[in-house]
Amino acid sequence: MSVPDDTPPAAPAAADDSGLRLRLVLEPDVAFGPGKADLLEGIAETGSIAAAGRRMGMSYKRAWTLVETLNGAFAAPLVARSRGGAQGGGARLTETGATVLALYRDIEAKAARASRADRDRLQALLRSQRPAGEAAEDPDA
Amino acid sequence: MSVPDDTPPAAPAAADDSGLRLRLVLEPDVAFGPGKADLLEGIAETGSIAAAGRRMGMSYKRAWTLVETLNGAFAAPLVARSRGGAQGGGARLTETGATVLALYRDIEAKAARASRADRDRLQALLRSQRPAGEAAEDPDA
Repeated sequence: MSVPDDTPPAAPAAADDSGLRLRLVLEPDVAFGPGKADLLEGIAETGSIAAAGRRMGMSYKRAWTLVETLNGAFAAPLVARSRGGAQGGGARLTETGATVLALYRDIEAKAARASRADRDRLQALLRSQRPAGEAAEDPDA
Repeated sequence: MSVPDDTPPAAPAAADDSGLRLRLVLEPDVAFGPGKADLLEGIAETGSIAAAGRRMGMSYKRAWTLVETLNGAFAAPLVARSRGGAQGGGARLTETGATVLALYRDIEAKAARASRADRDRLQALLRSQRPAGEAAEDPDA
């Protein structure tokens, strides 16, 4: 499956429940959004760029390109490879990588909280009332 | 110029200065983001779907498709055409359209405010320190 830049795939991210997607434009051509955040999270959890990409339906080449882009955009790399070679190498988040991911998740959470009332008002104007989307935020659902 | 769904083009939106892009997933296949917000704003300002699309580098067909998608997603249409016919028809935002646009801009502003400190911390980790991006938020720049 080919995934356009930073478009959230059928991803397992927790913050998806709000229906709010945040993209930070770091440079004119480099953005950090749900796709890259999920990829970093996947690398932290699987220890592998290939495995992290795979569970997002992303090719190894695509996942690697996103990692390279991120590593180039920050003063220190976000992902370090622990062994060389093509699809066999292990990978982990650096301290900067973990910080960037944590900041992004925090930005997501703060933005979701701050905009909750407005988003509810907007949802109320929809033709269909999102039976699934908000469920995880509603303890009574 | 072909613009992928809701990707912000070289747009004149005010909220762009924060580097923060917000997309609200209204339905599984329908999102409301910077592109559609700018399009609605353009329609309000120009009184024309064609003119609004044109200033975003978007074909009339593309602009019209986005408007149709939005009109179909909400309980009431967001854009009303004041005269029939293809590229000659005038258009305006309905009350619902104006409300949706205002809510989106408010969500953008609240999310930007709530995440400002975290975004600054993230920016500080970048290789290059966004000479242009944040300028408009800094009265001393």
